[in-house]
Amino acid sequence: MKDQKKKRLTIEKEKKDLFGGGYSLVEAVCRGEMRAIARAISLVENDEPGAEEFMREIYRHRQEAIVVGITGAPGTGKSTLVDQLVEKFRKEKIPIGVIAVDPSSPFTGGAILGDRIRMMRHSCDDGVFIRSMATRGYLGGLAKSTGEVIAILEAAGKKYIFVETVGVGQDEGDIVRHSDLVAVILTPQAGDEIQVFKAGVMEIGDLFVLNKADLPETERAERQLRSMLELAGSGDSLPPIIKTVATKGEGIEALKTTIKSLTERQNKEVRLGRRRQLTSWLLRELLREKLITLLFESIEPDEFEALVDEILAREIDPYTAAELLCQKITRKK
Amino acid sequence: MKDQKKKRLTIEKEKKDLFGGGYSLVEAVCRGEMRAIARAISLVENDEPGAEEFMREIYRHRQEAIVVGITGAPGTGKSTLVDQLVEKFRKEKIPIGVIAVDPSSPFTGGAILGDRIRMMRHSCDDGVFIRSMATRGYLGGLAKSTGEVIAILEAAGKKYIFVETVGVGQDEGDIVRHSDLVAVILTPQAGDEIQVFKAGVMEIGDLFVLNKADLPETERAERQLRSMLELAGSGDSLPPIIKTVATKGEGIEALKTTIKSLTERQNKEVRLGRRRQLTSWLLRELLREKLITLLFESIEPDEFEALVDEILAREIDPYTAAELLCQKITRKK
Repeated sequence: MKDQKKKRLTIEKEKKDLFGGGYSLVEAVCRGEMRAIARAISLVENDEPGAEEFMREIYRHRQEAIVVGITGAPGTGKSTLVDQLVEKFRKEKIPIGVIAVDPSSPFTGGAILGDRIRMMRHSCDDGVFIRSMATRGYLGGLAKSTGEVIAILEAAGKKYIFVETVGVGQDEGDIVRHSDLVAVILTPQAGDEIQVFKAGVMEIGDLFVLNKADLPETERAERQLRSMLELAGSGDSLPPIIKTVATKGEGIEALKTTIKSLTERQNKEVRLGRRRQLTSWLLRELLREKLITLLFESIEPDEFEALVDEILAREIDPYTAAELLCQKITRKK
Repeated sequence: MKDQKKKRLTIEKEKKDLFGGGYSLVEAVCRGEMRAIARAISLVENDEPGAEEFMREIYRHRQEAIVVGITGAPGTGKSTLVDQLVEKFRKEKIPIGVIAVDPSSPFTGGAILGDRIRMMRHSCDDGVFIRSMATRGYLGGLAKSTGEVIAILEAAGKKYIFVETVGVGQDEGDIVRHSDLVAVILTPQAGDEIQVFKAGVMEIGDLFVLNKADLPETERAERQLRSMLELAGSGDSLPPIIKTVATKGEGIEALKTTIKSLTERQNKEVRLGRRRQLTSWLLRELLREKLITLLFESIEPDEFEALVDEILAREIDPYTAAELLCQKITRKK
């Protein structure tokens, strides 16, 4: 209880320190102030004192945005595409958020530095907020904090939020799968067809982008993709395929129009269904975090380590150890 | 309680059905029988009834193996390297396990099908067990089940277990970071240097492999890598750099020798420290799974969904909702 009070005081103080003139961090976020959004995201990412309380307020203030998942293999040109898309949306003054879910090690290849530099041209534009999310943490939490950053950007009045991921790993994959719209980026390079097929990506794609469409194999690739979509399709309407050359800005206008019309046309029920998935995914992630935090709060600091030692000494198996620890919170103390 | 009993009966029955002649699935695994290992892994991966009980027994029987994490960007030739390494170790009759942590979507590029086919040449060899782990599940669990597969392979008498990952994502990253030895695979292709630097991979690598060392930029890349390791190094001994051309089998003998000598020489305390990390990571993952399972067992099926609806209707924020749900298990019923 005392701790709770201390937390509240800290954040109250911070509100005043950071955003004088009588308005709070939440208010500054809601005004779309870049610095405030950045501060808010750090608050959440680092799980600083008061973060949860802050997020409760954010939830009260957010306006629903359209979350567009952009996924594709490394080297398909996702970042360049997103960069170009942002430009097109900004020409219409639409407030935009970009969340780049970055693998912890930039092992995914591709021009990581180049990408970031390219995106920086939007950094002077107040209507665009771009954030890279690292997956570096040992204790999980990427999924949770990405969900929270979406909420912060919604509170900041962004209308479209692009979540760019390589689609590897569960956490990133889930975010994309639960977006309002999922665009799958492919290139006409050899081998991709098999991969799409194998990946079961066809089921998650609402829209397919064939980037690098100036490559010679483009037509063949498009034919293959189309016939695969037909084969997998259940209804009469196939997801659109848009050809782009992101580096030259070709096809981006068509892509923007398609994204807008697909999301604007989106059936209310479909949209609500997607929203439900996104929300239940976030709730589940919050639960996971909260439960493990609760557990570690209810045991002595060395109790966990002592059990690890016992497992190493083969005095106990890890399953029994986990059960013992779980009982610490499931039983009334 | 009744459920527990039923589970036990199911697995007792299965033991008899599958492995007649008076020995159980656990025993069959401990004899290193391929079919039994495969069955055991499915049991765990699908979290079938009796899985936990089975794993308790496995834990009692396992012999500690050396877990070697092999990580690198897509296209660096990890699978080919592992394949070649397996061959070298098998020439010495050393029992080997391979766990390929596969991204759910084969988005990581690279010759996915080719890799698998190449590895298949070991499929007739009883001393090698190869398993791909998918990251497809929505509810997490990759980390947990990889830890469990390691234990199964240890019980099956494998002496070296190679865990091959792209190093993207938290789950896979953790496994690698907590291995007894981590080999980082690089290629002399442009851009890699910066990436290694950025990735903080240098701290996790006990050993660096410069694959595709027949490329012209090899010498320059090696120089760069070496000076970066010197810069980052705290002590006087730098991690070894091994040059290989996996496709031609070049440098593999040296790689095997280095892996063996590094792990055999490994200071007992260092080794115990690594083991502690691996164990505490597994225990934490088991806890995460167990807690969320416990929670969903203690609430009514539609209680969760009802809360999601309330969040959507903005009657409650997700944090309060999570708190309410957590109270369901933290309070005595």
